Amino acid sequence: MVVLLKSNTDMAQREQLIQWLRGMNLDVHVTEGKLQTILGLVGDTSAIDIDLIQALDIVDTVKRIQEPYKKANRRFHPDPTVIQVGDMKAGGGNFAMIAGPCSVESEEQILSVAQSVKAAGATMLRGGAFKPRTSPYAFQGLHNRGIELLLEAKKVTGLPIVTEIMDLSQLPLFEEVDMIQVGARNMQNFTLLRELGKLNKPILLKRGLSSTIDELLMSAEYIMAGGNEEIILCERGIRTFETHTRNTLDLSAIPVLKELTHLPVVIDPSHSTGYARFVRPMSRAAAAAGADGLIIEVHNNPSAALCDGPQSLTPDAYKEVAGDVGRILEAMRV
Amino acid sequence: MVVLLKSNTDMAQREQLIQWLRGMNLDVHVTEGKLQTILGLVGDTSAIDIDLIQALDIVDTVKRIQEPYKKANRRFHPDPTVIQVGDMKAGGGNFAMIAGPCSVESEEQILSVAQSVKAAGATMLRGGAFKPRTSPYAFQGLHNRGIELLLEAKKVTGLPIVTEIMDLSQLPLFEEVDMIQVGARNMQNFTLLRELGKLNKPILLKRGLSSTIDELLMSAEYIMAGGNEEIILCERGIRTFETHTRNTLDLSAIPVLKELTHLPVVIDPSHSTGYARFVRPMSRAAAAAGADGLIIEVHNNPSAALCDGPQSLTPDAYKEVAGDVGRILEAMRV
Amino acid sequence: MVVLLKSNTDMAQREQLIQWLRGMNLDVHVTEGKLQTILGLVGDTSAIDIDLIQALDIVDTVKRIQEPYKKANRRFHPDPTVIQVGDMKAGGGNFAMIAGPCSVESEEQILSVAQSVKAAGATMLRGGAFKPRTSPYAFQGLHNRGIELLLEAKKVTGLPIVTEIMDLSQLPLFEEVDMIQVGARNMQNFTLLRELGKLNKPILLKRGLSSTIDELLMSAEYIMAGGNEEIILCERGIRTFETHTRNTLDLSAIPVLKELTHLPVVIDPSHSTGYARFVRPMSRAAAAAGADGLIIEVHNNPSAALCDGPQSLTPDAYKEVAGDVGRILEAMRV
Amino acid sequence: MVVLLKSNTDMAQREQLIQWLRGMNLDVHVTEGKLQTILGLVGDTSAIDIDLIQALDIVDTVKRIQEPYKKANRRFHPDPTVIQVGDMKAGGGNFAMIAGPCSVESEEQILSVAQSVKAAGATMLRGGAFKPRTSPYAFQGLHNRGIELLLEAKKVTGLPIVTEIMDLSQLPLFEEVDMIQVGARNMQNFTLLRELGKLNKPILLKRGLSSTIDELLMSAEYIMAGGNEEIILCERGIRTFETHTRNTLDLSAIPVLKELTHLPVVIDPSHSTGYARFVRPMSRAAAAAGADGLIIEVHNNPSAALCDGPQSLTPDAYKEVAGDVGRILEAMRV
Repeated sequence: MVVLLKSNTDMAQREQLIQWLRGMNLDVHVTEGKLQTILGLVGDTSAIDIDLIQALDIVDTVKRIQEPYKKANRRFHPDPTVIQVGDMKAGGGNFAMIAGPCSVESEEQILSVAQSVKAAGATMLRGGAFKPRTSPYAFQGLHNRGIELLLEAKKVTGLPIVTEIMDLSQLPLFEEVDMIQVGARNMQNFTLLRELGKLNKPILLKRGLSSTIDELLMSAEYIMAGGNEEIILCERGIRTFETHTRNTLDLSAIPVLKELTHLPVVIDPSHSTGYARFVRPMSRAAAAAGADGLIIEVHNNPSAALCDGPQSLTPDAYKEVAGDVGRILEAMRV
Repeated sequence: MVVLLKSNTDMAQREQLIQWLRGMNLDVHVTEGKLQTILGLVGDTSAIDIDLIQALDIVDTVKRIQEPYKKANRRFHPDPTVIQVGDMKAGGGNFAMIAGPCSVESEEQILSVAQSVKAAGATMLRGGAFKPRTSPYAFQGLHNRGIELLLEAKKVTGLPIVTEIMDLSQLPLFEEVDMIQVGARNMQNFTLLRELGKLNKPILLKRGLSSTIDELLMSAEYIMAGGNEEIILCERGIRTFETHTRNTLDLSAIPVLKELTHLPVVIDPSHSTGYARFVRPMSRAAAAAGADGLIIEVHNNPSAALCDGPQSLTPDAYKEVAGDVGRILEAMRV
Repeated sequence: MVVLLKSNTDMAQREQLIQWLRGMNLDVHVTEGKLQTILGLVGDTSAIDIDLIQALDIVDTVKRIQEPYKKANRRFHPDPTVIQVGDMKAGGGNFAMIAGPCSVESEEQILSVAQSVKAAGATMLRGGAFKPRTSPYAFQGLHNRGIELLLEAKKVTGLPIVTEIMDLSQLPLFEEVDMIQVGARNMQNFTLLRELGKLNKPILLKRGLSSTIDELLMSAEYIMAGGNEEIILCERGIRTFETHTRNTLDLSAIPVLKELTHLPVVIDPSHSTGYARFVRPMSRAAAAAGADGLIIEVHNNPSAALCDGPQSLTPDAYKEVAGDVGRILEAMRV
Repeated sequence: MVVLLKSNTDMAQREQLIQWLRGMNLDVHVTEGKLQTILGLVGDTSAIDIDLIQALDIVDTVKRIQEPYKKANRRFHPDPTVIQVGDMKAGGGNFAMIAGPCSVESEEQILSVAQSVKAAGATMLRGGAFKPRTSPYAFQGLHNRGIELLLEAKKVTGLPIVTEIMDLSQLPLFEEVDMIQVGARNMQNFTLLRELGKLNKPILLKRGLSSTIDELLMSAEYIMAGGNEEIILCERGIRTFETHTRNTLDLSAIPVLKELTHLPVVIDPSHSTGYARFVRPMSRAAAAAGADGLIIEVHNNPSAALCDGPQSLTPDAYKEVAGDVGRILEAMRV
């Protein structure tokens, strides 16, 4: 970490800052420049809150040389991590096709969707048992019954399953779930992240809708710091002023993340755009930009499932998307 | 709720939508216009997810006539709610002065700050025991020891205390805490909100940094739906592109919230701006705009407490802010 | 246009609104609903400012049925428009490859870049003669000399040229320029747009960095209203909170625009991301999402041209991008 | 300016950068640190584009020590500038009350509004002659007739006038206008700014709706660089995700601007919030935060002037606002 002090800083304040930094077990190298004094900090600076130093009166700029995330950092793990769950692999050239309904609604529904997405090429089944809903009066999912139905669909199709956890207290119900999803609203639920770090189970970590890429990586680091390094990152749209799509899908996050981290990156074109008709072009684009997979909402019977309607594809439409994606991946492999 | 259908909609799809809505226990009144068909929905529409209907192919626009929040809604509770905790009152003409350090660090620190903010006119003591930190390697607060120290400061000064909860599992530690704070990152932690709704204790609910005002009110509704109607809302800055301040303090939220809800609204000028030198002008502005209180970071010894430095005032500076605010409230009372 | 009035509206105010609307040459059909009164407006509503009506006390919601843009609207021109300039075609299955340096610097530079991008497959040459710079003290381009050099490069290579206009007063210099670019900062310079509408020359209209898609289309409409319907739209990144890229490239704008308008859409991966290393993945993604072309910064000698460095590709790197794009377009044609 | 190079930079690239910087007439002082090499640049760096250097492969961070604006910079002009136009003064303790209708519509209208706002305490009259409208089909103002009517109102009331210019070509019409307004959409119309810099007439420069504070100051610098240093800055709301107000009024910009520049800052609570009922609380807040004035829309006959309705006050309501503001300024003077 390098700290540039303002010119004409008070010597007493400067000495105080240096002592405080040394108290954090850092070596402090002082360079007196013509214009400014520069403090070079050597040691483990990951516990230092850069905002606090930045806002001190005598400080002009603070710049980390090492990113504050270590285990998620590509600098220290140059090879891409491959996450494998059942037949599904993501990362290192493997493309994950995760698909399924918004909510698990019934045995018939989940079995039917699971079989049709498997036939279309999906490698993992998704489905919500606990649904985060902005209204306390809305349907909140089937809870443990939903998880039971997903496990049943897994038994029938062989597809591993991923579903969202909303609170630590639900953790016992997730024992047989193959991958646990942390939703966008929980991306900075640090207590939850810390507990998931103690598991031996892959985590699908979704970017918060106004979270920076650095914040996403720090949240991954929370899980990894506990020992669980099996994480798939998911970009699912950020909040902007544009209203033609529900959120703005930030596909540039793919090459940025590829540079910063070794973890796989999947894209959710369903929630980000909010409309089924934009899922196909955005799925193609994600594959072309170098994503490691897609998580797409698919429902069996559009006319019956009002809830799934807007952002969900039919199994047939999903098959077309899968075909497109396959051809694009092929074209880029040449 | 009013649903405008697109012109030339398929009659079968239209009938299906109407049946589905009736299945939600709503009366559906159909008006055939020259240009469009309009469905008027009568009944309790608060469980309806407006986004789902909005995105249907046959739907042009959906408009709620009644906001989806009921208990938080000013329409049904025209009188402002007054929240009282110890000597602190907020709302209905009462202005709350909540002050204290970012983190509880030691007995000496919290007692000293508590006594000086009380002398300067504070009516409630704040202080963090559990600190949400973006880095897993940073100091996370004194936890239950922090709460013990706050309770001691309460005993000595008589000031009621407010401190932040980060997870449901911490709830037993908050039994003697006077008001529980839900931080910006937890504003949509619906499981937590639901449990807080079962308590008989005031909640300070902070707006998420990219949450709309409607989302803030829906989160209040989550708590109120469980029976706990003692909520103070807090605006603490929203995420924008401007970087001279940490976040952008949205003071227009004050008159907007006053119109939509009967709950008191307090402003946090410390976290929103991120710099102590902007706390005074923004505190004045908040009071002038009609806020019901301020929550301000104050520390005892700026040179020692690096952590508090940037956005915290000294007790003397706090006294000046309190004086300004008093004079402005007085000027507006005339 | 449909106007929903609030319940319990004052009859006098309502009558006044209806009279005002009739004064705008609109037929007003009143439907008295159980819940609300609805006004259906028939006629040309494109001159009506929806914000003004929306904000009236008695109005609940206003919804356009017809978008306020007419000539740019796909509803009235279902077939995609093909813009042809020299050998370059954009739209209707034609993919435009526009390339060249940030600024025209010298004869040697522009000729060298023009020849190498032509060899790599570019169909049009870009280059800045007038440069919008945030600092009044920075280099502002070669002005008319820059345009002369572009015309020389055109003569040598046969590539048509596109360059940016900054003010109406420069228009006489653009007589021989093949396509005039309107930069992001000028997207709502309505006086300029209106004058460009009188020309018989294609316009490359860039989206403002905080402009909505609807605002972009209204700006196209300004030009088209004057009779010039040869417009290519360009998405070049929007301003968000993310800082790893200069702006956030909104690729979802491609399918959204394809739905709303018949005009071709090209993507600028250079200015949007701000870094040369992100141009290749984003170019692929743009092609896969259905763009009609790419506008990419290419310079001849990276080590000499500091100005172009960050976001510009070398000719060799550009050739690779062009190859990728070709293969992806091929893969999707199947 | 201080440039931190990445560790392990290529010596040839580094040498090239240093040579290039010296070519810009800068002294370059190299400090070899244990961790990084630091280049200290001495000389006039205002012509250097920081983004270009920032994005070079070998550069880690660039930090200006001196802001790129010089004439607008408080560092070099510690005393606040007072702008005086007729009886209106803004800055240095003087509070400007600018008021008037959105558009000039008729002689009767503008005279009536001018007289009533003068009676209520306004010190300057505003009114639009050229209206920037997003639709080419909407009413665009009375143009030169509008300016004539404003001048007539000035003659009758003695109030100086301010009105918006949209393009350089309109400049001759503004000869007798007391202050020229540059609208938010033109804040980065650099050609226009440069020409206004040659005038001897105050400019009211509005912040673009997605412009940073630094960009606003650089636009002021464009005008000042030409010799015209009579500028009043105006904050009028920035574009965010919140929709209860038209834009988000950034009142923190007041103390930030007070720190960075000596120019006066006025606030536009009408356009920023978009609703007349929020003008009063936001006017109070602006005064309390330290603004140097307010620019408020006032119309004479709300029921007739549909266009003005939403965000305009009646003269009576304006009088109340003026009274509130006076009392708050008084309270803070103590």
